[in-house]
Amino acid sequence: MTLELFYWPGLQGRGEFIRLALEEAGLEYIEVGAGRAEDNQGVPAITHWLDGEDVARPPFAPPFLKVGSEVIGQTAAILMWLGAHHGLAPTEESARLWTHQVQLTIADAVVEAHESHHPVSAGLYYEDQREEAQRRAVDFREARIPKFLGWFDRVMSHNPAGPAFLVGDALTYADLSLYQLVEGLLYAYPKATTRALAECPNVVALHSAVGERPRIKAYLESGRRIPFNAGGIFRHYPELDG
Amino acid sequence: MTLELFYWPGLQGRGEFIRLALEEAGLEYIEVGAGRAEDNQGVPAITHWLDGEDVARPPFAPPFLKVGSEVIGQTAAILMWLGAHHGLAPTEESARLWTHQVQLTIADAVVEAHESHHPVSAGLYYEDQREEAQRRAVDFREARIPKFLGWFDRVMSHNPAGPAFLVGDALTYADLSLYQLVEGLLYAYPKATTRALAECPNVVALHSAVGERPRIKAYLESGRRIPFNAGGIFRHYPELDG
Repeated sequence: MTLELFYWPGLQGRGEFIRLALEEAGLEYIEVGAGRAEDNQGVPAITHWLDGEDVARPPFAPPFLKVGSEVIGQTAAILMWLGAHHGLAPTEESARLWTHQVQLTIADAVVEAHESHHPVSAGLYYEDQREEAQRRAVDFREARIPKFLGWFDRVMSHNPAGPAFLVGDALTYADLSLYQLVEGLLYAYPKATTRALAECPNVVALHSAVGERPRIKAYLESGRRIPFNAGGIFRHYPELDG
Repeated sequence: MTLELFYWPGLQGRGEFIRLALEEAGLEYIEVGAGRAEDNQGVPAITHWLDGEDVARPPFAPPFLKVGSEVIGQTAAILMWLGAHHGLAPTEESARLWTHQVQLTIADAVVEAHESHHPVSAGLYYEDQREEAQRRAVDFREARIPKFLGWFDRVMSHNPAGPAFLVGDALTYADLSLYQLVEGLLYAYPKATTRALAECPNVVALHSAVGERPRIKAYLESGRRIPFNAGGIFRHYPELDG
């Protein structure tokens, strides 16, 4: 069964956390948002599920994943499903729940990365909230980036199976998402993130190892990986870094 | 087995979403944060789990729930566990995942409710970010409150089992959390929330029905329900409402 990923075209955004899991699991999937309206794809296909009167379980927002007739929304919920069904999560209940907890904390960090350049409204341009963003970014880069990355590092150093992964002794979707969070932070806040990573050797090692996994490396080099840009969650405004 | 809830004392906060589920399920639990340090409770007991070097799975932040030797953090993950083990969620996998998706969207709304009065930093006083909050609150009350409440209302009206609950034909933890979200929004933004609720009859009906459930009503009237206050997620600053 081919999976269908629904996400706004032209952005990594939250869709990228799903793409990395799909790629690592070797699953076939269609990028519906990037398709053409005449093929029942593209943005109209996304809005059908969001707004359709006949949709029993309308997602609140992209990304969402269509699995047969079922539509799953919310990044962390999609990853939980992929983890359980495609070998990217532990099988034991408490370890699975812990993996999900780590993922929800990554999701919290992702929200804050977005808020750092859009502290007033996601509906306004950055340029219309630049002053507020400059205040918020100070807190984000000085307090929040070190706190989040430090916590992930500590989770790895406390992992009874060793510090190579966040949970247990095998890769989970949370490791893939932490890779993407670090990539995004290094793009958006290179100075602050490099400084914070100097205290987080486990996170640095995981980031390198994930980038070298054969399927992830092939994806990153494939041309299908959309570059970071000024429309996504992670945005590089030099005046916000420091 | 008595459950142990770890949350900062004196606040509803995110702990309240857990309390409502514990109360509805009729479970015995200890409020560790409200206890005394000499009984190995209180704030030191919270920080032990957050910062302890010997903790294999340290939560990022309260609330967390201790179940025997296991510690579960992240509000939505705790509720997922309570739902699965204590009759507050459907048993079928896709319905359970949908319940969790709805909960994650409630969690998103809760984050935005907090950001509306703390758009610069959770570490600064409101008074030090009042100007930024006034801009953010306009977007929150005019765009985000109607969007979130409207989505919950639509989820209920699209529910194949009828509009009495968010998912299926029985109460889930998501219904309890939506009750709490509405309570909090009515406290913090009474004008904007009343206006939005006028378009959301299903949400209004659910809010009333949950408040009348015997165990919830008993809890609300028990004196154990901490009143809303200026230290929580939902704060009433009249200048932000309108």
